[in-house]
Amino acid sequence: MNNRRIVLASRPAGEASSANFRLETVQTPALAEGQVLVRHHWLSLDPYMRMRMNDMKSYAPPVAVGAVMMAGTAGVVAESRNAAFETGDTVVGQGGWQEWSVVDAPEKGALRKVDTTHVPLSAYLGAVGMPGVTAWIGLVHFIEPKAGETIVVDAASGAVGGVVGQLAKARGCRAVGLAGGADKCAYVKEELGFDACIDHKAHRDFASLAAALDRVAPNGVDGLFENVGGLILDVVLSRMNAFGRITLCGMIASYDGAPMPITNPRLLLTQRLRLQGFIVSEHMHLWPQALAELGEGVATRRIKYRETVAQGLENAPEAFLGLLKGRNFGKQLVKLA
Amino acid sequence: MNNRRIVLASRPAGEASSANFRLETVQTPALAEGQVLVRHHWLSLDPYMRMRMNDMKSYAPPVAVGAVMMAGTAGVVAESRNAAFETGDTVVGQGGWQEWSVVDAPEKGALRKVDTTHVPLSAYLGAVGMPGVTAWIGLVHFIEPKAGETIVVDAASGAVGGVVGQLAKARGCRAVGLAGGADKCAYVKEELGFDACIDHKAHRDFASLAAALDRVAPNGVDGLFENVGGLILDVVLSRMNAFGRITLCGMIASYDGAPMPITNPRLLLTQRLRLQGFIVSEHMHLWPQALAELGEGVATRRIKYRETVAQGLENAPEAFLGLLKGRNFGKQLVKLA
Repeated sequence: MNNRRIVLASRPAGEASSANFRLETVQTPALAEGQVLVRHHWLSLDPYMRMRMNDMKSYAPPVAVGAVMMAGTAGVVAESRNAAFETGDTVVGQGGWQEWSVVDAPEKGALRKVDTTHVPLSAYLGAVGMPGVTAWIGLVHFIEPKAGETIVVDAASGAVGGVVGQLAKARGCRAVGLAGGADKCAYVKEELGFDACIDHKAHRDFASLAAALDRVAPNGVDGLFENVGGLILDVVLSRMNAFGRITLCGMIASYDGAPMPITNPRLLLTQRLRLQGFIVSEHMHLWPQALAELGEGVATRRIKYRETVAQGLENAPEAFLGLLKGRNFGKQLVKLA
Repeated sequence: MNNRRIVLASRPAGEASSANFRLETVQTPALAEGQVLVRHHWLSLDPYMRMRMNDMKSYAPPVAVGAVMMAGTAGVVAESRNAAFETGDTVVGQGGWQEWSVVDAPEKGALRKVDTTHVPLSAYLGAVGMPGVTAWIGLVHFIEPKAGETIVVDAASGAVGGVVGQLAKARGCRAVGLAGGADKCAYVKEELGFDACIDHKAHRDFASLAAALDRVAPNGVDGLFENVGGLILDVVLSRMNAFGRITLCGMIASYDGAPMPITNPRLLLTQRLRLQGFIVSEHMHLWPQALAELGEGVATRRIKYRETVAQGLENAPEAFLGLLKGRNFGKQLVKLA
């Protein structure tokens, strides 16, 4: 089978560009015993991929130059030499930026059958997949929200942030989002049901953003789900209540390598805050509980989400670069079939 | 009774100075029912007092201008109108920078009788008091050290840091201290039994301090007990292992108001670190367990400590200003009687 794939052509120096990617066509190998051939229908694009393009110390090794970019994928089994999978099964896996993958299905977590009766296949890459579980673990497990508390999340119209606020609302919290642009903010409030959303593009300095936050979080902030870093983190930190909790899930503001300090860490001490960095894949024991709530929420339309869909693998790099600049609206996907 | 006391004369603008303090003499009031008159023998000087001199958002209200500076004190009951205390009892309390205090003894935590049979009275202001319990809670409760891990603590010759390292050693950890000066480092290693101690005065930039840390912590750092902040925090953060824990107990480097950013907070995410600010007085349920280990350790000489003693209340301001500059060696006390 002809398989088009996108490999890392070179490492970015600063901002990533389309020159860092290369489209190749190869043949899929014949299946060995236990393997499954998957036709990818959906490719997930996520900010963490930017970090994997750098050769730096992080929680996972970088993508090698010349290797296929990693990604979550959802698709359909085209051929199987594994008794657990049949042709036609809908599956999610880590297939990478390519149209097909040959999966060693017996490998733990390599491929998972999903039921698309009530949940669309693409949602398994979003609200009922890695981003949704990230939201759930960060909020429920680490922030531990209590009814009446104020929870702030940035990138609030995105795949993770949107779920954070909806889960917080379901727990009786005040949910405050930050997003880039009036249209995203309107969506966060009106569609997702947040109590408030701040357009951070309209507040580009500390004083302005802090004043905006004070207007919508008059009792201070008890929990911060941080996806961005930089100015937003500094401002929300200055408004944290005693014993507040911060989860560091992403720092997209610094992925290009620009230094992004926490200006006043003394507040972490004086407000007795807890800050926790985490990676969703290291808390597998929490996934079943998270997926149960998320799947039920999406199936019953109580959890809402939006998708931005690029058409065809060749458009994945541009869609990814747009994601890093916040040009997507909701979950960024690439439709492959 | 003539009572000499030191009040906050004015708030510091930047660095604190002796002009911010004023010595007064007043009369102790007659005792009301339930009250106890205590003659202070020892006054504890601690870095946190510097923060209370500022009119800023923190975990406790600032000292009012004109009010007595707060402090832990150890002394002897001189007169009692409370059935729980007798003349001659050795007690610790929060008597402040003065020679005598009239204590509303029934108030919870106001005054505590202590046994000086095996533990010297002054130790109840140090290793078997607030600083020792701070060390215990930060290390045992928040860092949760496991045998074989590397624990780093700064201000390692001080009242808190010295205990942190000794408790870490008792739990099978590698204890690495930072202290200012070769004499303090020698004491930390030879007297307190740390595995290593870095003289941070000999390493004043990132590269030099990081190289020094790499030499004595070749397997990276699993726990950081942070008393100082600034460059030390930045350097140790860069050497933290995955799932490391940081307790923020003090940030003495920033108490004069200079900004002291965390330069690269992305490491908190990529290494999935947990950072927790805490105040010892908010974890009273842990004190009995902590004091049991600390009292036993001091009584049996397994926990060692050193004291720097200023003579007479009039010398408290100078001793305190020296403490902020690291001129003390071990626990800073003032002998009042």
